[in-house]
Amino acid sequence: MIDLKAYLKERAARINQALDEYLPAENEEPATLHKAMRYSVMAGGKRIRPVLMMAACEAVGGRAEAVIPAACAMEMIHTYSLIHDDLPAMDDDDYRRGRLTCHKVFGEAMAILAGDALLTEAFVLLSAPGVFADLPAERVIQVTHIIASAAGSRGMVGGQAVDIESEGKKITPEVLHYLHTHKTGALILASLQAGALIGGASDRAFSDMTRYGEAVGLAFQVADDILDVVGDEKELGKKTGVDATHGKATYPALFGLDEARKRAALLRDESIAALESFGEEAEALRLIADYVVKRTS
Amino acid sequence: MIDLKAYLKERAARINQALDEYLPAENEEPATLHKAMRYSVMAGGKRIRPVLMMAACEAVGGRAEAVIPAACAMEMIHTYSLIHDDLPAMDDDDYRRGRLTCHKVFGEAMAILAGDALLTEAFVLLSAPGVFADLPAERVIQVTHIIASAAGSRGMVGGQAVDIESEGKKITPEVLHYLHTHKTGALILASLQAGALIGGASDRAFSDMTRYGEAVGLAFQVADDILDVVGDEKELGKKTGVDATHGKATYPALFGLDEARKRAALLRDESIAALESFGEEAEALRLIADYVVKRTS
Repeated sequence: MIDLKAYLKERAARINQALDEYLPAENEEPATLHKAMRYSVMAGGKRIRPVLMMAACEAVGGRAEAVIPAACAMEMIHTYSLIHDDLPAMDDDDYRRGRLTCHKVFGEAMAILAGDALLTEAFVLLSAPGVFADLPAERVIQVTHIIASAAGSRGMVGGQAVDIESEGKKITPEVLHYLHTHKTGALILASLQAGALIGGASDRAFSDMTRYGEAVGLAFQVADDILDVVGDEKELGKKTGVDATHGKATYPALFGLDEARKRAALLRDESIAALESFGEEAEALRLIADYVVKRTS
Repeated sequence: MIDLKAYLKERAARINQALDEYLPAENEEPATLHKAMRYSVMAGGKRIRPVLMMAACEAVGGRAEAVIPAACAMEMIHTYSLIHDDLPAMDDDDYRRGRLTCHKVFGEAMAILAGDALLTEAFVLLSAPGVFADLPAERVIQVTHIIASAAGSRGMVGGQAVDIESEGKKITPEVLHYLHTHKTGALILASLQAGALIGGASDRAFSDMTRYGEAVGLAFQVADDILDVVGDEKELGKKTGVDATHGKATYPALFGLDEARKRAALLRDESIAALESFGEEAEALRLIADYVVKRTS
Protein backbone atom coordinates (compact mmCIF):
# COMPACT_ATOMS: atom_id res chain seq x y z
CA MET A 1 0.00 0.00 0.00
CA ILE A 2 1.30 3.40 -0.99
CA ASP A 3 0.83 6.27 1.43
CA LEU A 4 0.24 8.85 -1.31
CA LYS A 5 0.85 11.90 0.83
CA ALA A 6 4.27 10.62 1.95
CA TYR A 7 5.00 9.35 -1.57
CA LEU A 8 4.28 12.73 -3.20
CA LYS A 9 6.32 14.52 -0.58
CA GLU A 10 9.31 12.23 -0.98
CA ARG A 11 9.24 12.38 -4.77
CA ALA A 12 8.94 16.17 -4.79
CA ALA A 13 11.90 16.36 -2.42
CA ARG A 14 13.98 14.20 -4.77
CA ILE A 15 13.10 16.49 -7.69
CA ASN A 16 13.90 19.60 -5.67
CA GLN A 17 17.30 18.18 -4.83
CA ALA A 18 18.01 17.39 -8.49
CA LEU A 19 16.78 20.81 -9.66
CA ASP A 20 19.07 22.44 -7.14
CA GLU A 21 21.94 20.43 -8.58
CA TYR A 22 21.16 21.11 -12.23
CA LEU A 23 20.32 24.83 -12.07
CA PRO A 24 23.22 27.29 -12.32
CA ALA A 25 24.27 28.54 -8.88
CA GLU A 26 22.84 31.81 -7.61
CA ASN A 27 26.24 33.42 -7.39
CA GLU A 28 27.28 32.38 -10.88
CA GLU A 29 27.27 35.35 -13.28
CA PRO A 30 24.96 36.74 -14.46
CA ALA A 31 23.83 36.44 -10.85
CA THR A 32 20.52 38.33 -11.13
CA LEU A 33 19.38 36.10 -13.96
CA HIS A 34 20.33 32.93 -12.11
CA LYS A 35 18.67 34.23 -8.93
CA ALA A 36 15.48 34.92 -10.86
CA MET A 37 15.52 31.44 -12.41
CA ARG A 38 16.01 29.80 -9.01
CA TYR A 39 13.50 32.08 -7.31
CA SER A 40 10.73 30.77 -9.52
CA VAL A 41 11.82 27.14 -9.81
CA MET A 42 12.53 26.72 -6.11
CA ALA A 43 9.27 28.40 -5.06
CA GLY A 44 7.83 24.97 -4.36
CA GLY A 45 4.95 23.60 -6.30
CA LYS A 46 3.78 20.03 -6.34
CA ARG A 47 6.20 18.83 -9.04
CA ILE A 48 3.28 16.86 -10.40
CA ARG A 49 4.78 16.51 -13.91
CA PRO A 50 8.10 15.09 -12.63
CA VAL A 51 6.24 12.83 -10.20
CA LEU A 52 4.07 11.52 -13.06
CA MET A 53 7.16 10.93 -15.21
CA MET A 54 8.83 8.91 -12.46
CA ALA A 55 5.64 6.93 -11.83
CA ALA A 56 5.13 6.21 -15.54
CA CYS A 57 8.69 4.94 -15.82
CA GLU A 58 8.15 2.60 -12.88
CA ALA A 59 4.76 1.48 -14.19
CA VAL A 60 6.44 0.04 -17.29
CA GLY A 61 9.21 -1.60 -15.24
CA GLY A 62 11.88 1.13 -15.31
CA ARG A 63 13.74 2.84 -12.48
CA ALA A 64 12.37 6.22 -11.36
CA GLU A 65 15.92 7.57 -11.08
CA ALA A 66 16.44 7.19 -14.83
CA VAL A 67 13.98 9.98 -15.61
CA ILE A 68 15.37 12.58 -13.19
CA PRO A 69 17.09 14.79 -15.83
CA ALA A 70 14.03 14.70 -18.11
CA ALA A 71 11.75 15.33 -15.13
CA CYS A 72 13.81 18.38 -14.15
CA ALA A 73 13.77 19.63 -17.74
CA MET A 74 9.99 19.29 -17.69
CA GLU A 75 9.72 21.26 -14.45
CA MET A 76 11.95 24.01 -15.89
CA ILE A 77 9.63 24.25 -18.89
CA HIS A 78 6.56 24.31 -16.64
CA THR A 79 8.12 27.06 -14.49
CA TYR A 80 9.11 29.17 -17.49
CA SER A 81 5.51 28.97 -18.70
CA LEU A 82 4.27 30.22 -15.32
CA ILE A 83 6.75 33.13 -15.32
CA HIS A 84 5.71 34.27 -18.79
CA ASP A 85 2.02 33.61 -18.07
CA ASP A 86 2.19 35.90 -15.02
CA LEU A 87 3.70 38.85 -16.95
CA PRO A 88 1.72 42.11 -17.12
CA ALA A 89 1.18 41.63 -20.86
CA MET A 90 -0.27 38.17 -20.19
CA ASP A 91 -2.32 37.33 -17.06
CA ASP A 92 -0.72 40.07 -14.95
CA ASP A 93 -0.57 38.06 -11.72
CA ASP A 94 1.16 39.27 -8.58
CA TYR A 95 1.29 36.00 -6.66
CA ARG A 96 2.29 32.47 -7.57
CA ARG A 97 2.99 29.51 -5.36
CA GLY A 98 2.41 31.76 -2.35
CA ARG A 99 4.97 34.41 -3.18
CA LEU A 100 5.40 37.42 -5.41
CA THR A 101 5.68 36.56 -9.09
CA CYS A 102 9.07 36.74 -10.79
CA HIS A 103 8.48 40.08 -12.54
CA LYS A 104 7.23 41.62 -9.28
CA VAL A 105 10.60 40.86 -7.68
CA PHE A 106 13.06 41.10 -10.57
CA GLY A 107 11.26 43.37 -13.03
CA GLU A 108 9.65 42.52 -16.34
CA ALA A 109 12.79 42.36 -18.46
CA MET A 110 14.57 39.98 -16.11
CA ALA A 111 11.44 37.83 -15.78
CA ILE A 112 11.16 37.48 -19.56
CA LEU A 113 14.82 36.48 -19.69
CA ALA A 114 14.54 34.09 -16.72
CA GLY A 115 11.69 32.33 -18.53
CA ASP A 116 13.67 32.19 -21.76
CA ALA A 117 16.69 30.84 -19.91
CA LEU A 118 14.70 28.14 -18.10
CA LEU A 119 13.13 26.94 -21.35
CA THR A 120 16.58 26.81 -22.93
CA GLU A 121 18.16 25.17 -19.89
CA ALA A 122 15.68 22.30 -20.24
CA PHE A 123 17.27 21.44 -23.58
CA VAL A 124 20.79 22.05 -22.30
CA LEU A 125 20.02 19.41 -19.68
CA LEU A 126 18.29 16.96 -22.04
CA SER A 127 21.35 17.00 -24.31
CA ALA A 128 24.05 17.16 -21.62
CA PRO A 129 26.78 14.53 -21.87
CA GLY A 130 26.25 11.57 -19.59
CA VAL A 131 22.90 12.51 -18.03
CA PHE A 132 21.12 9.60 -19.70
CA ALA A 133 24.02 7.19 -19.43
CA ASP A 134 21.88 4.04 -19.66
CA LEU A 135 19.68 5.21 -22.51
CA PRO A 136 20.39 4.74 -26.24
CA ALA A 137 21.01 8.10 -27.94
CA GLU A 138 18.06 7.54 -30.27
CA ARG A 139 15.79 7.26 -27.24
CA VAL A 140 17.13 10.50 -25.76
CA ILE A 141 16.28 12.28 -29.01
CA GLN A 142 12.81 10.74 -29.04
CA VAL A 143 12.19 11.95 -25.47
CA THR A 144 13.47 15.41 -26.38
CA HIS A 145 11.10 15.51 -29.34
CA ILE A 146 8.10 14.54 -27.23
CA ILE A 147 8.89 17.21 -24.64
CA ALA A 148 9.69 19.97 -27.15
CA SER A 149 6.60 19.25 -29.25
CA ALA A 150 4.36 19.31 -26.17
CA ALA A 151 5.80 22.69 -25.14
CA GLY A 152 5.62 24.37 -28.55
CA SER A 153 3.09 26.08 -30.78
CA ARG A 154 1.23 22.81 -31.38
CA GLY A 155 1.18 22.18 -27.63
CA MET A 156 1.34 24.38 -24.55
CA VAL A 157 2.25 27.70 -26.20
CA GLY A 158 -0.51 27.08 -28.72
CA GLY A 159 -2.92 26.70 -25.81
CA GLN A 160 -1.68 29.92 -24.25
CA ALA A 161 -2.14 31.78 -27.52
CA VAL A 162 -5.74 30.59 -27.83
CA ASP A 163 -6.28 31.42 -24.16
CA ILE A 164 -5.14 35.01 -24.71
CA GLU A 165 -7.31 35.36 -27.79
CA SER A 166 -10.36 33.90 -26.03
CA GLU A 167 -10.37 36.27 -23.05
CA GLY A 168 -13.70 37.96 -22.64
CA LYS A 169 -15.19 36.07 -25.58
CA LYS A 170 -17.92 33.48 -25.43
CA ILE A 171 -16.22 30.27 -26.42
CA THR A 172 -17.47 26.92 -27.61
CA PRO A 173 -16.94 23.59 -25.83
CA GLU A 174 -14.56 22.69 -28.69
CA VAL A 175 -12.30 25.66 -27.99
CA LEU A 176 -12.40 24.89 -24.26
CA HIS A 177 -11.30 21.35 -25.05
CA TYR A 178 -8.44 22.69 -27.19
CA LEU A 179 -7.40 24.99 -24.34
CA HIS A 180 -7.45 22.23 -21.75
CA THR A 181 -5.62 19.67 -23.84
CA HIS A 182 -2.96 22.14 -24.96
CA LYS A 183 -2.33 24.66 -22.19
CA THR A 184 -2.03 22.09 -19.39
CA GLY A 185 -2.71 18.69 -20.88
CA ALA A 186 0.18 18.62 -23.32
CA LEU A 187 2.99 18.75 -20.72
CA ILE A 188 1.23 16.24 -18.46
CA LEU A 189 0.78 13.81 -21.33
CA ALA A 190 4.38 14.33 -22.46
CA SER A 191 5.63 13.67 -18.92
CA LEU A 192 3.90 10.29 -18.92
CA GLN A 193 5.01 9.42 -22.44
CA ALA A 194 8.61 10.42 -21.70
CA GLY A 195 8.57 8.36 -18.50
CA ALA A 196 7.18 5.35 -20.35
CA LEU A 197 9.76 5.67 -23.13
CA ILE A 198 12.67 6.01 -20.72
CA GLY A 199 11.34 2.99 -18.83
CA GLY A 200 11.39 0.95 -22.02
CA ALA A 201 7.64 0.66 -22.56
CA SER A 202 6.23 -1.74 -25.13
CA ASP A 203 4.07 -0.20 -27.86
CA ARG A 204 0.98 -1.41 -26.03
CA ALA A 205 2.11 0.06 -22.70
CA PHE A 206 3.01 3.35 -24.41
CA SER A 207 -0.41 3.56 -25.98
CA ASP A 208 -2.16 2.78 -22.67
CA MET A 209 -0.02 5.39 -20.96
CA THR A 210 -1.08 7.88 -23.62
CA ARG A 211 -4.74 7.19 -22.87
CA TYR A 212 -4.07 7.57 -19.15
CA GLY A 213 -2.19 10.81 -19.80
CA GLU A 214 -4.91 12.34 -21.94
CA ALA A 215 -7.59 11.62 -19.35
CA VAL A 216 -5.55 12.60 -16.30
CA GLY A 217 -4.37 15.81 -17.97
CA LEU A 218 -7.94 16.85 -18.63
CA ALA A 219 -8.98 15.82 -15.12
CA PHE A 220 -6.18 18.00 -13.76
CA GLN A 221 -7.35 21.03 -15.72
CA VAL A 222 -11.04 20.61 -14.88
CA ALA A 223 -10.05 20.29 -11.20
CA ASP A 224 -7.93 23.42 -11.57
CA ASP A 225 -10.89 25.30 -13.01
CA ILE A 226 -13.04 24.12 -10.09
CA LEU A 227 -10.39 25.19 -7.57
CA ASP A 228 -10.34 28.66 -9.07
CA VAL A 229 -14.02 28.90 -8.11
CA VAL A 230 -14.17 27.09 -4.77
CA GLY A 231 -10.52 26.80 -3.67
CA ASP A 232 -8.83 28.47 -0.72
CA GLU A 233 -6.40 31.25 -1.73
CA LYS A 234 -4.06 30.55 1.14
CA GLU A 235 -3.84 26.85 0.38
CA LEU A 236 -3.44 27.47 -3.36
CA GLY A 237 -0.83 30.19 -2.93
CA LYS A 238 -2.51 32.30 -5.60
CA LYS A 239 -5.63 34.38 -6.05
CA THR A 240 -8.86 32.55 -6.86
CA GLY A 241 -11.72 33.83 -8.96
CA VAL A 242 -9.27 35.20 -11.50
CA ASP A 243 -10.68 33.12 -14.32
CA ALA A 244 -14.04 34.85 -13.91
CA THR A 245 -12.41 38.29 -13.56
CA HIS A 246 -10.41 37.75 -16.74
CA GLY A 247 -13.43 36.35 -18.52
CA LYS A 248 -11.49 33.11 -18.97
CA ALA A 249 -13.06 30.06 -20.49
CA THR A 250 -13.37 27.32 -17.89
CA TYR A 251 -15.32 24.13 -17.49
CA PRO A 252 -17.47 25.44 -14.60
CA ALA A 253 -18.15 28.67 -16.49
CA LEU A 254 -19.41 26.75 -19.50
CA PHE A 255 -21.20 23.83 -17.85
CA GLY A 256 -21.64 24.78 -14.18
CA LEU A 257 -19.87 23.51 -11.07
CA ASP A 258 -21.85 20.28 -10.66
CA GLU A 259 -21.26 19.19 -14.23
CA ALA A 260 -17.56 20.04 -13.85
CA ARG A 261 -17.28 17.84 -10.76
CA LYS A 262 -19.00 14.97 -12.55
CA ARG A 263 -16.71 15.40 -15.52
CA ALA A 264 -13.59 15.37 -13.33
CA ALA A 265 -14.73 12.15 -11.61
CA LEU A 266 -15.46 10.55 -14.99
CA LEU A 267 -12.03 11.47 -16.29
CA ARG A 268 -10.43 9.99 -13.18
CA ASP A 269 -12.28 6.74 -13.86
CA GLU A 270 -11.19 6.82 -17.49
CA SER A 271 -7.53 7.30 -16.52
CA ILE A 272 -7.63 4.41 -14.08
CA ALA A 273 -9.37 2.20 -16.66
CA ALA A 274 -6.60 2.94 -19.18
CA LEU A 275 -4.16 1.19 -16.85
CA GLU A 276 -6.06 -2.10 -16.60
CA SER A 277 -3.29 -4.09 -18.27
CA PHE A 278 -0.80 -2.79 -15.70
CA GLY A 279 -0.13 -4.47 -12.38
CA GLU A 280 0.87 -3.23 -8.95
CA GLU A 281 3.67 -1.07 -10.50
CA ALA A 282 0.98 1.33 -11.73
CA GLU A 283 -0.67 1.75 -8.32
CA ALA A 284 0.88 5.20 -7.82
CA LEU A 285 -0.57 6.40 -11.14
CA ARG A 286 -4.03 5.17 -10.11
CA LEU A 287 -3.81 6.95 -6.77
CA ILE A 288 -2.53 10.14 -8.43
CA ALA A 289 -5.53 10.13 -10.80
CA ASP A 290 -7.76 10.20 -7.77
CA TYR A 291 -5.65 12.80 -5.98
CA VAL A 292 -5.66 15.11 -9.01
CA VAL A 293 -9.44 15.36 -8.77
CA LYS A 294 -9.69 15.59 -4.98
CA ARG A 295 -6.78 17.93 -4.22
CA THR A 296 -7.43 21.25 -2.55
CA SER A 297 -4.27 22.96 -3.78
CA MET B 1 36.70 32.49 -56.99
CA ILE B 2 33.57 33.02 -54.94
CA ASP B 3 31.33 35.96 -55.78
CA LEU B 4 30.41 36.67 -52.16
CA LYS B 5 27.39 38.78 -52.90
CA ALA B 6 25.81 36.09 -55.08
CA TYR B 7 26.93 33.40 -52.64
CA LEU B 8 25.29 35.08 -49.64
CA LYS B 9 22.13 35.70 -51.61
CA GLU B 10 21.90 32.11 -52.81
CA ARG B 11 22.57 30.65 -49.37
CA ALA B 12 20.05 32.95 -47.69
CA ALA B 13 17.47 31.91 -50.29
CA ARG B 14 18.10 28.23 -49.53
CA ILE B 15 17.61 28.91 -45.80
CA ASN B 16 14.44 30.90 -46.43
CA GLN B 17 13.06 28.01 -48.45
CA ALA B 18 13.86 25.53 -45.66
CA LEU B 19 12.43 27.80 -42.95
CA ASP B 20 9.25 28.12 -44.95
CA GLU B 21 9.08 24.34 -45.09
CA TYR B 22 9.82 23.75 -41.39
CA LEU B 23 7.65 26.47 -39.83
CA PRO B 24 4.00 25.63 -39.12
CA ALA B 25 1.74 27.01 -41.86
CA GLU B 26 0.09 30.39 -41.33
CA ASN B 27 -3.37 28.93 -41.52
CA GLU B 28 -2.65 26.12 -39.06
CA GLU B 29 -4.31 26.75 -35.68
CA PRO B 30 -3.53 28.70 -33.60
CA ALA B 31 -3.26 30.85 -36.70
CA THR B 32 -2.38 34.16 -35.02
CA LEU B 33 0.56 32.56 -33.23
CA HIS B 34 1.84 30.91 -36.39
CA LYS B 35 1.37 34.16 -38.32
CA ALA B 36 3.39 36.04 -35.69
CA MET B 37 6.17 33.44 -35.81
CA ARG B 38 6.36 33.60 -39.59
CA TYR B 39 6.05 37.38 -39.65
CA SER B 40 9.29 37.72 -37.71
CA VAL B 41 11.23 34.81 -39.19
CA MET B 42 10.34 35.61 -42.78
CA ALA B 43 11.09 39.34 -42.38
CA GLY B 44 14.38 38.77 -44.15
CA GLY B 45 17.64 39.27 -42.43
CA LYS B 46 21.01 38.13 -43.70
CA ARG B 47 20.78 34.58 -42.29
CA ILE B 48 24.41 35.04 -41.33
CA ARG B 49 24.36 32.28 -38.67
CA PRO B 50 22.91 29.65 -41.04
CA VAL B 51 25.31 30.77 -43.78
CA LEU B 52 28.25 30.41 -41.37
CA MET B 53 27.05 26.96 -40.32
CA MET B 54 26.85 25.80 -43.92
CA ALA B 55 30.28 27.27 -44.70
CA ALA B 56 31.86 25.67 -41.61
CA CYS B 57 30.48 22.30 -42.58
CA GLU B 58 31.93 22.63 -46.06
CA ALA B 59 35.24 23.91 -44.74
CA VAL B 60 35.79 20.60 -42.91
CA GLY B 61 34.72 18.56 -45.93
CA GLY B 62 30.99 18.11 -45.26
CA ARG B 63 27.96 18.89 -47.39
CA ALA B 64 26.23 22.22 -46.71
CA GLU B 65 22.82 20.53 -47.08
CA ALA B 66 23.51 18.37 -44.02
CA VAL B 67 23.27 21.35 -41.66
CA ILE B 68 19.99 22.79 -43.00
CA PRO B 69 17.78 21.66 -40.07
CA ALA B 70 20.33 22.86 -37.49
CA ALA B 71 20.80 26.11 -39.42
CA CYS B 72 17.05 26.72 -39.42
CA ALA B 73 16.88 25.93 -35.70
CA MET B 74 19.63 28.50 -35.14
CA GLU B 75 17.76 31.13 -37.14
CA MET B 76 14.57 30.44 -35.14
CA ILE B 77 16.53 30.99 -31.93
CA HIS B 78 18.08 34.17 -33.30
CA THR B 79 14.66 35.47 -34.36
CA TYR B 80 13.04 34.66 -31.00
CA SER B 81 15.82 36.63 -29.31
CA LEU B 82 15.10 39.64 -31.54
CA ILE B 83 11.35 39.45 -30.81
CA HIS B 84 11.90 39.38 -27.05
CA ASP B 85 14.69 41.97 -27.24
CA ASP B 86 12.35 44.40 -29.02
CA LEU B 87 9.59 44.13 -26.36
CA PRO B 88 8.59 47.28 -24.47
CA ALA B 89 10.04 45.84 -21.24
CA MET B 90 13.36 45.25 -23.01
CA ASP B 91 14.71 47.57 -25.73
CA ASP B 92 11.26 48.82 -26.78
CA ASP B 93 11.98 48.96 -30.50
CA ASP B 94 9.35 49.70 -33.12
CA TYR B 95 11.24 48.61 -36.22
CA ARG B 96 13.29 45.56 -37.09
CA ARG B 97 14.52 44.34 -40.44
CA GLY B 98 12.71 47.27 -42.03
CA ARG B 99 9.25 46.54 -40.69
CA LEU B 100 7.23 46.95 -37.52
CA THR B 101 8.37 44.74 -34.68
CA CYS B 102 6.33 41.67 -33.75
CA HIS B 103 4.65 43.22 -30.69
CA LYS B 104 3.73 46.33 -32.68
CA VAL B 105 1.74 44.17 -35.08
CA PHE B 106 0.49 41.31 -32.90
CA GLY B 107 0.53 42.82 -29.41
CA GLU B 108 2.85 42.13 -26.52
CA ALA B 109 1.30 38.88 -25.32
CA MET B 110 1.37 37.27 -28.75
CA ALA B 111 4.95 38.48 -29.34
CA ILE B 112 6.10 36.91 -26.08
CA LEU B 113 4.42 33.65 -27.10
CA ALA B 114 5.75 33.79 -30.67
CA GLY B 115 9.27 34.11 -29.25
CA ASP B 116 8.68 31.24 -26.83
CA ALA B 117 7.28 29.10 -29.63
CA LEU B 118 10.20 29.81 -31.98
CA LEU B 119 12.73 28.92 -29.32
CA THR B 120 10.84 25.70 -28.63
CA GLU B 121 10.39 24.93 -32.32
CA ALA B 122 14.17 24.98 -32.72
CA PHE B 123 14.38 21.96 -30.44
CA VAL B 124 11.36 20.29 -32.00
CA LEU B 125 13.26 20.50 -35.27
CA LEU B 126 16.64 19.40 -33.88
CA SER B 127 15.02 16.27 -32.44
CA ALA B 128 12.61 15.54 -35.28
CA PRO B 129 12.71 12.00 -36.69
CA GLY B 130 14.76 11.71 -39.85
CA VAL B 131 16.00 15.29 -40.20
CA PHE B 132 19.61 14.27 -39.60
CA ALA B 133 19.36 10.96 -41.42
CA ASP B 134 23.11 10.68 -42.10
CA LEU B 135 24.28 11.72 -38.64
CA PRO B 136 24.87 9.38 -35.69
CA ALA B 137 22.37 10.08 -32.87
CA GLU B 138 25.22 10.92 -30.48
CA ARG B 139 26.33 13.68 -32.85
CA VAL B 140 22.80 15.10 -33.06
CA ILE B 141 22.72 15.34 -29.26
CA GLN B 142 26.14 17.00 -29.21
CA VAL B 143 25.00 19.60 -31.76
CA THR B 144 21.82 20.19 -29.74
CA HIS B 145 23.90 20.72 -26.63
CA ILE B 146 26.18 23.24 -28.32
CA ILE B 147 23.22 25.21 -29.66
CA ALA B 148 21.20 25.11 -26.41
CA SER B 149 24.19 26.07 -24.27
CA ALA B 150 25.02 28.99 -26.53
CA ALA B 151 21.44 30.25 -26.31
CA GLY B 152 21.02 29.89 -22.54
CA SER B 153 21.90 31.72 -19.35
CA ARG B 154 25.60 31.01 -19.85
CA GLY B 155 25.35 32.26 -23.42
CA MET B 156 23.07 34.64 -25.24
CA VAL B 157 20.39 35.13 -22.57
CA GLY B 158 23.17 35.72 -20.04
CA GLY B 159 24.49 38.47 -22.32
CA GLN B 160 21.03 40.01 -22.60
CA ALA B 161 20.63 40.00 -18.83
CA VAL B 162 23.95 41.80 -18.35
CA ASP B 163 23.00 44.18 -21.16
CA ILE B 164 19.75 45.10 -19.39
CA GLU B 165 21.56 45.57 -16.08
CA SER B 166 24.28 47.69 -17.67
CA GLU B 167 22.01 50.25 -19.32
CA GLY B 168 22.94 53.76 -18.32
CA LYS B 169 25.85 52.57 -16.21
CA LYS B 170 29.51 53.18 -16.91
CA ILE B 171 30.87 49.78 -17.72
CA THR B 172 34.36 48.34 -17.84
CA PRO B 173 36.03 46.86 -20.93
CA GLU B 174 35.69 43.46 -19.22
CA VAL B 175 31.90 43.75 -19.02
CA LEU B 176 31.79 44.97 -22.62
CA HIS B 177 33.77 41.89 -23.64
CA TYR B 178 31.32 39.67 -21.74
CA LEU B 179 28.41 41.37 -23.49
CA HIS B 180 29.90 40.97 -26.94
CA THR B 181 30.96 37.37 -26.51
CA HIS B 182 27.62 36.35 -25.00
CA LYS B 183 24.85 38.46 -26.51
CA THR B 184 25.95 37.99 -30.12
CA GLY B 185 29.16 35.97 -30.11
CA ALA B 186 27.75 32.82 -28.55
CA LEU B 187 25.27 31.97 -31.33
CA ILE B 188 27.80 32.80 -34.05
CA LEU B 189 30.42 30.59 -32.44
CA ALA B 190 27.87 27.80 -31.91
CA SER B 191 26.83 28.02 -35.57
CA LEU B 192 30.41 27.40 -36.66
CA GLN B 193 30.98 24.65 -34.13
CA ALA B 194 27.73 22.91 -35.06
CA GLY B 195 28.62 23.15 -38.74
CA ALA B 196 32.07 21.72 -38.10
CA LEU B 197 30.67 18.86 -36.00
CA ILE B 198 28.01 17.97 -38.56
CA GLY B 199 30.70 18.05 -41.24
CA GLY B 200 32.77 15.55 -39.28
CA ALA B 201 35.58 17.89 -38.20
CA SER B 202 38.77 16.50 -36.66
CA ASP B 203 39.62 17.77 -33.16
CA ARG B 204 42.17 20.10 -34.70
CA ALA B 205 39.72 21.47 -37.26
CA PHE B 206 37.08 21.92 -34.56
CA SER B 207 39.51 23.87 -32.41
CA ASP B 208 40.60 26.08 -35.34
CA MET B 209 36.94 26.68 -36.16
CA THR B 210 36.37 27.71 -32.55
CA ARG B 211 39.17 30.28 -32.79
CA TYR B 212 37.71 31.56 -36.06
CA GLY B 213 34.27 31.71 -34.49
CA GLU B 214 35.38 33.63 -31.43
CA ALA B 215 37.17 36.25 -33.51
CA VAL B 216 34.53 36.61 -36.19
CA GLY B 217 31.75 36.80 -33.58
CA LEU B 218 33.50 39.68 -31.87
CA ALA B 219 34.24 41.34 -35.21
CA PHE B 220 30.54 41.09 -36.05
CA GLN B 221 29.52 42.77 -32.81
CA VAL B 222 32.12 45.55 -33.01
CA ALA B 223 30.97 46.20 -36.59
CA ASP B 224 27.36 46.25 -35.35
CA ASP B 225 28.27 48.83 -32.73
CA ILE B 226 29.98 50.95 -35.40
CA LEU B 227 26.94 50.68 -37.70
CA ASP B 228 24.71 51.93 -34.91
CA VAL B 229 26.81 55.12 -34.94
CA VAL B 230 27.54 55.63 -38.65
CA GLY B 231 25.11 53.31 -40.44
CA ASP B 232 22.21 54.22 -42.67
CA GLU B 233 18.78 53.61 -41.08
CA LYS B 234 17.17 52.72 -44.37
CA GLU B 235 19.84 50.22 -45.29
CA LEU B 236 19.86 48.70 -41.79
CA GLY B 237 16.09 48.49 -41.53
CA LYS B 238 16.20 49.75 -37.96
CA LYS B 239 16.87 52.95 -36.08
CA THR B 240 20.50 53.94 -35.51
CA GLY B 241 21.88 55.82 -32.56
CA VAL B 242 19.75 53.75 -30.20
CA ASP B 243 22.77 52.42 -28.31
CA ALA B 244 23.65 55.96 -27.28
CA THR B 245 20.04 56.82 -26.46
CA HIS B 246 19.72 53.75 -24.28
CA GLY B 247 23.10 54.42 -22.68
CA LYS B 248 24.24 51.04 -24.03
CA ALA B 249 27.77 49.89 -23.67
CA THR B 250 29.43 49.67 -27.07
CA TYR B 251 32.95 49.50 -28.39
CA PRO B 252 32.85 52.98 -29.99
CA ALA B 253 31.36 54.46 -26.81
CA LEU B 254 34.18 53.04 -24.73
CA PHE B 255 37.14 53.42 -27.08
CA GLY B 256 36.03 55.81 -29.84
CA LEU B 257 35.14 55.14 -33.47
CA ASP B 258 38.72 54.98 -34.80
CA GLU B 259 39.80 52.45 -32.23
CA ALA B 260 36.66 50.40 -32.90
CA ARG B 261 37.45 50.28 -36.62
CA LYS B 262 41.02 49.20 -35.93
CA ARG B 263 39.76 46.52 -33.55
CA ALA B 264 37.28 45.17 -36.11
CA ALA B 265 40.02 44.93 -38.74
CA LEU B 266 42.32 43.17 -36.31
CA LEU B 267 39.62 40.65 -35.42
CA ARG B 268 39.02 39.99 -39.12
CA ASP B 269 42.74 39.25 -39.52
CA GLU B 270 42.65 36.97 -36.49
CA SER B 271 39.70 35.01 -37.85
CA ILE B 272 41.36 34.52 -41.19
CA ALA B 273 44.62 33.47 -39.52
CA ALA B 274 42.75 30.81 -37.50
CA LEU B 275 41.93 29.07 -40.78
CA GLU B 276 45.51 28.75 -42.01
CA SER B 277 45.43 24.95 -41.89
CA PHE B 278 42.34 24.94 -44.10
CA GLY B 279 42.45 24.94 -47.88
CA GLU B 280 40.20 26.32 -50.58
CA GLU B 281 37.11 24.86 -48.87
CA ALA B 282 37.40 27.59 -46.24
CA GLU B 283 37.51 30.44 -48.76
CA ALA B 284 33.90 31.43 -48.05
CA LEU B 285 34.64 31.75 -44.32
CA ARG B 286 37.63 34.00 -45.07
CA LEU B 287 35.54 36.22 -47.33
CA ILE B 288 32.74 36.36 -44.78
CA ALA B 289 35.20 37.52 -42.09
CA ASP B 290 36.04 40.45 -44.33
CA TYR B 291 32.40 41.09 -45.24
CA VAL B 292 31.34 41.12 -41.57
CA VAL B 293 33.64 44.08 -40.95
CA LYS B 294 32.92 45.97 -44.15
CA ARG B 295 29.14 45.47 -44.41
CA THR B 296 26.84 48.48 -44.38
CA SER B 297 23.76 46.61 -43.16
